[in-house]
This record gives sequence, structure tokens and C-alpha cells, in this order.
Amino acid sequence: MPNTPTDTIAAIATPPGSGALAIVRAGGGGAAAVARAVLGKALPPRRAVLARARDSAGDIDQVVSLFFPAESSPTGEDLVEITCHGSPYIQKRLLKALLEAGARAAEPGEFTRRSFCNGRMDLAQAEAVCDLIAAGTGAAHRSALSQLEGGLSRDVDALRAPILGLLTHLEACLDHPEEDIPPLGPAEAKARLTGLEAPVARLADSFRTGRLLREGPRVCIVGRPNAGKSSLLNALLGCERAIVCPEPGTTRDTIEEPCDLDGTPAVLVDTAGLGHDCACAADAESLRRTQRALRSSDVAVLVIDGSRPPDARDEAAHRALREASAEDRRPVLTVLSKADLAPRAPAAAGGCRVSVLRGDGMAELRSLLARTLGGGAGAACAGGAAVTCARHHDALRRCLARLGEARACVDSRPGCWEELAARELREALAALDEITGPAAPDEVLAGIFSRFCVGK
Amino acid sequence: MPNTPTDTIAAIATPPGSGALAIVRAGGGGAAAVARAVLGKALPPRRAVLARARDSAGDIDQVVSLFFPAESSPTGEDLVEITCHGSPYIQKRLLKALLEAGARAAEPGEFTRRSFCNGRMDLAQAEAVCDLIAAGTGAAHRSALSQLEGGLSRDVDALRAPILGLLTHLEACLDHPEEDIPPLGPAEAKARLTGLEAPVARLADSFRTGRLLREGPRVCIVGRPNAGKSSLLNALLGCERAIVCPEPGTTRDTIEEPCDLDGTPAVLVDTAGLGHDCACAADAESLRRTQRALRSSDVAVLVIDGSRPPDARDEAAHRALREASAEDRRPVLTVLSKADLAPRAPAAAGGCRVSVLRGDGMAELRSLLARTLGGGAGAACAGGAAVTCARHHDALRRCLARLGEARACVDSRPGCWEELAARELREALAALDEITGPAAPDEVLAGIFSRFCVGK
Repeated sequence: MPNTPTDTIAAIATPPGSGALAIVRAGGGGAAAVARAVLGKALPPRRAVLARARDSAGDIDQVVSLFFPAESSPTGEDLVEITCHGSPYIQKRLLKALLEAGARAAEPGEFTRRSFCNGRMDLAQAEAVCDLIAAGTGAAHRSALSQLEGGLSRDVDALRAPILGLLTHLEACLDHPEEDIPPLGPAEAKARLTGLEAPVARLADSFRTGRLLREGPRVCIVGRPNAGKSSLLNALLGCERAIVCPEPGTTRDTIEEPCDLDGTPAVLVDTAGLGHDCACAADAESLRRTQRALRSSDVAVLVIDGSRPPDARDEAAHRALREASAEDRRPVLTVLSKADLAPRAPAAAGGCRVSVLRGDGMAELRSLLARTLGGGAGAACAGGAAVTCARHHDALRRCLARLGEARACVDSRPGCWEELAARELREALAALDEITGPAAPDEVLAGIFSRFCVGK
Repeated sequence: MPNTPTDTIAAIATPPGSGALAIVRAGGGGAAAVARAVLGKALPPRRAVLARARDSAGDIDQVVSLFFPAESSPTGEDLVEITCHGSPYIQKRLLKALLEAGARAAEPGEFTRRSFCNGRMDLAQAEAVCDLIAAGTGAAHRSALSQLEGGLSRDVDALRAPILGLLTHLEACLDHPEEDIPPLGPAEAKARLTGLEAPVARLADSFRTGRLLREGPRVCIVGRPNAGKSSLLNALLGCERAIVCPEPGTTRDTIEEPCDLDGTPAVLVDTAGLGHDCACAADAESLRRTQRALRSSDVAVLVIDGSRPPDARDEAAHRALREASAEDRRPVLTVLSKADLAPRAPAAAGGCRVSVLRGDGMAELRSLLARTLGGGAGAACAGGAAVTCARHHDALRRCLARLGEARACVDSRPGCWEELAARELREALAALDEITGPAAPDEVLAGIFSRFCVGK
């Protein structure tokens, strides 16, 4: 990385475009000097100061400036925030003036990265800044704000403490056999390790909920060819997103669209028909994509052509789908389509009858979907901190694997299990530490902060 | 207007969308109370305070707040600016919290309107805020900033003072004939009135320059049918904006596109052919539009087909164009097109030869255009404040007309010219006062501030 922690960076911090006001910020060892050069006056700490920003070409704007000295700044370094009129021209020229005065253009997320490097927040909190800005629903916002305020970090610390306690005990026995430390029997060691695994597994499992919070649940529309899947997608979206055609097999690629279901955000996924003969390589690929879409979805909507009785192939395809979903504990809503063509057929249990053409049953379907999805979101809200980030999930799973290895040693290596288990516990702790990142390598940090916007 | 000056308003002030930071502001008598309800603490004046914004549903964000008490606020009323994380969700929820705490959503420009109503700026300065935010070039920015800082207001005051002086003299003579006031002779009155008119006319004339600053100059591309006008437009824009076709008369509507000519912003206008037979109503309308476009342009580019010698009709059309432009003092650049088809024809004086196909001469044309346009912008920069607003221009012209009427009275009504001239001078002052607006009627204010963005 080219930046040393003491150089001075600057960026436009507010959303791009035109508005009443905008903020341009400068941070780092020279922030006060750079601001003084542009504003022509020294800034007292934390007081709003009216000033005139100038560059070599003349006046830029009348601005209000704030100086946060390192000890009280959110980044742990001197920070100046200049509020100017929100014209793109003024914003760019003010930034240019700061750069000419000695700052360099900040990289994405560099202000937050400095907060982390200066110990103002741990890595999980820094990552939450990005999630907080992207959060579009109340649940996602609550989760990101909780993580920013150290919710996840405290959960990780709570997992860390007893692992460290067990490791310390084992190491004490190993390193100081001459001292009178009560040894740990294999049965007790296994019990304590099992006790350590459960909360790690619980936090790792919260990732599914966390993803729901961030992206909204995924609703996969599946069914036999020509059952009316694409028509249903379009009707739920309220626009002609998918091509609808009486020819079976019109949809080949899966189609994903975000959708608002009575206030619940979700991603709708339309798929190719199930149980279609794979006449060509494209059909085989369609089938693979459908299966992949189904596996990664939270709810399946099985569309059945309600205008004709199901034949044996229909029933086989529906059974296969229901079995796969039961295995993954994925709810299946059954929708009988084309109600206008067969007005008297009974509605399937747990589903509803719809006519996309006439709009019959669509309100019920939307509310049924919202209720089904709402369970997940509600549970997530109630359950406190959830893991929303694949990086954290991966670290928790590696921690869990190491704890499992440690437990396995106790039985499999009766002569030397203490030493082997201690090594696994050290690795388990290292995995947890990756989440809050006290010693994260540069390439991990670079990957994390490159997701940020400039100015944050 | 539904708003009384003391109610509390709130709005998002930074550009819409997602960024690192955003500002939500509240102003008015209850701003401090509303902020206190959302932030849970009282704010000291002008100090950056870290706070937690909350609504009935829970925490919204960690924010930095600034309170400007009325006496030191830009609006002349209590003002609170809350800097939050720049997520659209947080911005909306924070605004909603302020509204729930008792503020109402601000109308467009309402913060600036309050600055005006509270005497923090005059109307011309308030209007400059809008121009400043919209300014996209250095010249437009400089002009708006000068107007915001009272440049135009001072110019208007400088016009006002001697008119008031003359009026006071006339009224003193009329109202107090018993006192020993030296009377004003008709010759002296006419000389003083003529002296008053000149600077008003000068400021009114600066409107043309002012419009150039705001919108950039307009370049009208004209010429006989099939001379290559649309090809030239496309080549200057660098994209296929106009349909080009060997059939004469392809372009019927005028086409306008903003364009960057070597750093000088301009609006290019392509027109239908000149001197075309009006075979139908559409052709007649095309011709009218071409003439209108030409009249409102700052430079004409006359495109002449360089691949063939001009015939009598070409020459008549070109002569008519040159005469009309000379009358309006509009520069005409002559471009000989299709240089690839007639490589040896000489370039016209004051023009250049181009081949759109091969790119020959395009760089010269761009730089010639930029130089021709640059004269106007350069003059505007050097000349100090220019009138950029049609409303101000209109008021100055009415002022000028009243001064002219006053002068005419001196000769035409020898018995009672003093009284009639005094009446005209009062109207002339009233017209000037509309610019800075000490007593602007509500509907004028409403029209002005509705151009603003919300939050300003």
C-alpha cells in the first residue's frame, strides 16, 4: 500500500451530484495545515467557523469548517470537515484546492481504514460502516448499526474468552509440569470443548439470517414447463420483466429481480421448467441453473398449471422438488395458476389459486409470501447480532473446525492429546481474531476497504 | 403561503443518494427543541457534538450535530445541522424523526427564503444561491458568487442613489415652494436624467453576457440544404446525434446539444437548410425555427458545400444570412465542408475547410470556435457583475423606460414637468427595488424560491 498512516488525504464525503450543501473532508497529520492554506485561517477545535475557501484562481465559496483534533476525531487523526454549497463545480474545486495544498486524493474507505489502524474501531466495526451505508431496510440497518457499535465484536470476545481459558490451562500443564496445576482429564476436556463449540456454531448459523437481512430473502419460482412461472414473476413485479410465450421452455436463464412484497423486500428468481427433457446442452445447463437457484433460495413457489389435471411427470417433478426442499428446510408455497381457465378446481393446501390475467388471488399470494418471509426477518431482529458477512462466517466455521479437531485428538491421540489440542485451540483463536482483525494482513484490509466509497 | 416565519422546517440538505456522510437540517423557532427530542441532549452553540439520533422505533445513527442560534445562523433563525452516515435509509429516517418531533418538511428554497425574510440577504443574493449551486463553469461560478456576496446589489444601489437624489430635489421644490431651494432648470434636469440612464442601460445590456455565463454561448449551424450541417454537428459532438442522409432536407426540427469546445462550454444548434423551397407547411415551420435559432445564437457557423461551386441561390442565401448577422452583431464563421471531395478549393476568409469524413480541419475549427466564443466569456469576466437573471433584466429595462419618460416630460409638458418627472422617478426606483426585493410581493417570492432544491 502506498499510504503511510501520517500523510494527509482528502475527498468529497457527501453523495455525488447537486444539493444545498456538501462536505469535503481532509484527514491526517497535515489536515489542519492544508485547511489553513485553503481557508486562510487556523481552525479552533470542534467549533463551527465561517470561512472563505480560496485557491490560486480566486474565491471558491463561503464555507463552514470544523476541525476535529486527533484525540477527539472519529479517525484518530486530525480531521477537517468543510461544508460548502452543494454544487458539483464547487465540490470538485474545493477538493482540488486541498490537493494543491498538499493532501492526496483518499482511496475508497481510507478514512475508515485509519479509524481501524488508529484503534478507534475493530475490523468488524469498520466493515459495518459499509453495511450501514448500504442498509435499505430497518432490519439491515439495525444489524449494521449494532455491529458498528461493537455488537458482533462483543459476541466474538465472548466466544474467545473460554477458548483462551482452556488453552491457558492446557499450556500451563504442559509448560510447568513441576507446578501443582490440577490436570485436565480427557472426559472433562471433551465436555469443555463441546461446550465451546455450541455458541460458535450458533453464531456461524446466524449467517443465513444475516444474509436475509442484507439482501432480502430469495424467492425461487419453480414448476413444470409452461405452468405460468414467468407470468407470475411479471405479475408480482408489476412489469413485463420476463418474456412470456405459450411455447414451453421460453425461460432458459434464471432471472433475478428485487421486489417489494407488502413492505418486505425480496429477490424474485424465475427459473426454467422442471422435469423438462434435456434435448440439448442448453437445456441441461438451464436445469443446473434452476437447481442452483433453488438451493440458494429461502422460499420456493411451486407453480402448477391449474387448468388441467397433473400427469405422472408433473407429479414426479413436484415430489422431487418437495423432497429437496424438505431436506433443506425450505418452505414451499404452492400456486395453482390459470384460475380463469378452470374456475372450480380446489386450491392446494398451503397455497393459493391465482389468475395472473384477471388478478384473482394475487393479493392473497403477496400477503402469504410476505408472512412466510416475515418469519425469517422477524426471527433475525429478535435474535440480536447476526453474522452478515461471508468473511466472518468463514472465520467462524474455521474456528469451529479447529475446536472439532481438538476434541477428536482427545480420543485418537491418548498419549499427546494435550499438546495437539492446544495447537488446534491456538488456530481457533487466530480464526476468531480475523473477525475483529487486530493483526489482519494488508491484503485482507485492502480487500475489505476497496468495497467502500471514497470519502468514508 | 401556509408557512409563518416562526414554524420549524426540516430537510435533507446534501445531494440525494448514497455517500459517506449526509446532512439533515432543521430551522426555525423550534429547531433546538426538535433536535433535542431526536438527539436526547441540548446542543451548545456552534460546537460539534457527538450524539445518538433516535426515534420511537430505536436508534437511527451516531451523528455529529451543530446548533447555530438565530443571531449567528445563516438563516437568521435557530438552525441545527445533523451530519449522519450517508445512507438513504438513515437520511430519510432522521428526517422523519425530526418531522415527528414537530418540524414540517421544508419547501424548495425555504431556508434561503428565511435568510431573505430575516434580512440576512437581499433578494438578488438569495437568487444567487440557486445560480451558485447550478454553476458549471468557472465564469458562471464567479458571477454567482459575486452576486451572492452583494456585487449586483451594490451596483443597483449605485444606480439608485443619484435617482433618489434627483427625486428628492424635485420633491423638495414641489412640496416646499416657500423655502429657498435652488430650482432645477429644464436643461439641467435633462442632462442629469441622461446621465442617470447610461449606467442603467449598461447594467441591463450585461444580461446578454450574463446569459452566456449561465448557459454557455449558442452556436447555430446554418447553411443550404445538404451542405453538411448535421455531419458537422455530429463531428463536433463526437457522436451520431443528428440523422445524416444524402437526401437534402433531412433535418427539420432544430437540434440542440451541449458541447465542450476545447474547454469552453457551448450549446450547438443544428438547423434545417436555408433558402429551401417551402413545399409544405412543415418546411415553412422549419424555416421559422431556423430563423428563431439564428436570432437567439451568439455565433453562426455557415456551412458551405466545398465540393461544388456556389450557384446563385446559394449566394443569395449566404448574403441574407451575413446581412442578418451583421445587423445583430453576430460573428459568422464560414466552413467549407466536404474537403475530401474537392481538395484544392481555397478556404474562405475567416473560416476553414473541413472534411468530417477524414477529420481534416476539425481541430482548427474547434479552436477557432473556442477563440470566437472565448471573447465573450473573457469580456464578461473582466467586466465585473453581469445581470444573469431575466427578472433583473426586465426590472432594469422598466427603470430605463421610466427615466426616458421623465426626460421626455421636460420638453413635452413644460408647465408641470417637475411633478410628472417625479412620478416617473418614483416608478424607476420601484423597478430597481424589485431586484433586491425589500417589498417583493408573495407571488414573486414564491416563483423565485420554487426554482430551488429542497434543503437550501
